[in-house]
Amino acid sequence: MNPIITLTTDFGLDDAYVAAVKGVILGLCEDARLVDVTHLVAPQDVHGGAYHVSTLVNLYPAGTVHLAVVDPGVGSSRKPLLVATKRDFYIGPDNGVLTPALNAAKDVREIANPSYRRESVSATFHGRDIFAPAAAYLASGVPPSEFGPVVSDPVHLERWAVSREGDVVRGHVVHIDRFGSAITNIGRHLIEGDANVVIVRGEAIGPIVTTYADVGVGERLALIGSQETVEISINGGSAVEKLGLRRGDAVDILPG
Amino acid sequence: MNPIITLTTDFGLDDAYVAAVKGVILGLCEDARLVDVTHLVAPQDVHGGAYHVSTLVNLYPAGTVHLAVVDPGVGSSRKPLLVATKRDFYIGPDNGVLTPALNAAKDVREIANPSYRRESVSATFHGRDIFAPAAAYLASGVPPSEFGPVVSDPVHLERWAVSREGDVVRGHVVHIDRFGSAITNIGRHLIEGDANVVIVRGEAIGPIVTTYADVGVGERLALIGSQETVEISINGGSAVEKLGLRRGDAVDILPG
Amino acid sequence: MNPIITLTTDFGLDDAYVAAVKGVILGLCEDARLVDVTHLVAPQDVHGGAYHVSTLVNLYPAGTVHLAVVDPGVGSSRKPLLVATKRDFYIGPDNGVLTPALNAAKDVREIANPSYRRESVSATFHGRDIFAPAAAYLASGVPPSEFGPVVSDPVHLERWAVSREGDVVRGHVVHIDRFGSAITNIGRHLIEGDANVVIVRGEAIGPIVTTYADVGVGERLALIGSQETVEISINGGSAVEKLGLRRGDAVDILPG
Repeated sequence: MNPIITLTTDFGLDDAYVAAVKGVILGLCEDARLVDVTHLVAPQDVHGGAYHVSTLVNLYPAGTVHLAVVDPGVGSSRKPLLVATKRDFYIGPDNGVLTPALNAAKDVREIANPSYRRESVSATFHGRDIFAPAAAYLASGVPPSEFGPVVSDPVHLERWAVSREGDVVRGHVVHIDRFGSAITNIGRHLIEGDANVVIVRGEAIGPIVTTYADVGVGERLALIGSQETVEISINGGSAVEKLGLRRGDAVDILPG
Repeated sequence: MNPIITLTTDFGLDDAYVAAVKGVILGLCEDARLVDVTHLVAPQDVHGGAYHVSTLVNLYPAGTVHLAVVDPGVGSSRKPLLVATKRDFYIGPDNGVLTPALNAAKDVREIANPSYRRESVSATFHGRDIFAPAAAYLASGVPPSEFGPVVSDPVHLERWAVSREGDVVRGHVVHIDRFGSAITNIGRHLIEGDANVVIVRGEAIGPIVTTYADVGVGERLALIGSQETVEISINGGSAVEKLGLRRGDAVDILPG
Repeated sequence: MNPIITLTTDFGLDDAYVAAVKGVILGLCEDARLVDVTHLVAPQDVHGGAYHVSTLVNLYPAGTVHLAVVDPGVGSSRKPLLVATKRDFYIGPDNGVLTPALNAAKDVREIANPSYRRESVSATFHGRDIFAPAAAYLASGVPPSEFGPVVSDPVHLERWAVSREGDVVRGHVVHIDRFGSAITNIGRHLIEGDANVVIVRGEAIGPIVTTYADVGVGERLALIGSQETVEISINGGSAVEKLGLRRGDAVDILPG
């Protein structure tokens, strides 16, 4: 089977930057199948990139290489990173954008070996010159250990940590979708029992329901969304507008 | 030849929803070649989705699977639909989005067989959980009859019907393009003779000309557009602005 | 290796025009691998299309076919063009959009042979009816000489000429990127010595530095950008706003 490489960037769709990345990949791994995730991450929005990466974990065929380039520190000393989980691979800058993969990592490497980058590396376009070749070589079968030394302290975004204090599970709003729903990083498997209550911005919402239609139109609700995480919505409306929710808000789950 | 699957949705390009659909497809049909039609159908605009589907009919290699997910009724009782024509396949909700394919259907099925969907089906993302797997299995060679029972009364959008009363052929404006031209569903083969007149919103336009340059700049015209259907335009201007045309307007063709 | 065809157009992402082009290609060259460069070239902006083409030269694997359709003269007498360089191929209208490829051309042909177009050619959609089939046949191995006669005077955009008068190298701003930097067509290989000064709109900028951080925040600079050409920027700001730069501005490089 031909290897799959997905691409998540903040390069936009107006310019040929994404096409440059793809040209380099196809020159080094002619069989690669390229899938765009999105290139409309807000410029330099590392948290936004991390959210998209989180939605890809375990979804693609085993062995898929996920490339995520949201890189405000390009040209600085931040490391290029390779993360291997039991199932797939992630490539991107060491700035937290790969946090959701790090949570399941079995091997984390700095991409340091000059054999696996372009001969000439620009100061401003590591997506093309470092990350694209790394993804291509990895997809071609080069083992992670060849790319460079183990990184023991990669950057994690704090927001992606879910903590537990006694009965309370605490996570965060990690994404606002285009319907105005607030998506958290609290997975279904972290919820125990039936009648849990969700606390966000001082407001109690609960119990967790099954579908939007379980509450009246205009009423608020919490449910397990399509990403298998707790989501806070308004039936037929916008939780962002009605409840003033924002990305980064703390979310607590209390037993019912 | 590797099977082709096209994708038409209202998922937008900002989120990873399309990538989720593709991941599921590639996990089930590793050889699939994926082609994006558009993901910028206006949210829940079934008519817009149907128009795009109409432009694909007979254009792709035989055996292509066209996936069209514009699905305001997701989670309700509307059926997931599979349409086979003599030449290709269409997958989408039974809400009219597949109307242009239904007009040429030789087999219409409900996608009901649980073997051909994801193990766990969410309430809100049938694109990923039902339609993507169905497209993948169909592209892999599973015959339509395996997916479920025949549907004898699928939903048709009325607008896609073309009627004839005596000499008059009546259709509708089904799309406004970005140049402000009004594209109808009246195909070239329905037009007889040479000097036909087009009536829309009480205005007569005609006879049908060959190119924009056949009328003066700023003048209105009707021609057979690149979709092989009657199109109403202004040479160098916008028919929407000048004539106030809207999607859904009735269009009559009278003999010249 | 399966042939690669890239696509650069002004068709936008809302409509199915790009998908129509792809369907025709896949019907004629079933192994083609399609890569989108951008479809958001401003409508009929031939210069914008040419800039994107310039970024592709020498980047993709040898033998790649680059399709560039920005075609305000569709339906007129402008020729459809095929350009072969030592390394790759370019297809598009003869209106200057292929200028960056023409500069390295070894064979330029009119696409005139009716065997290599669709049976029925519309007046308004040559992307689908002429350029897509030409790209597909070329990618399938049909030699350029089969497509039509040599074109000895293809249209060049003047802006892409770089001239030299004594010590002074003169080029132009060919693109404004989304950070407000002005990208020129003056390649690194045209710059001699170390302390060159860049003159644009009467302002002197220089010497050419290595990275943004070589000047203070808010200060102007010139460097060799990721396209290996001279680029004029403001560290942390917009050269377009601060210096009033525009596409088309003359840029002179003086020895230091």
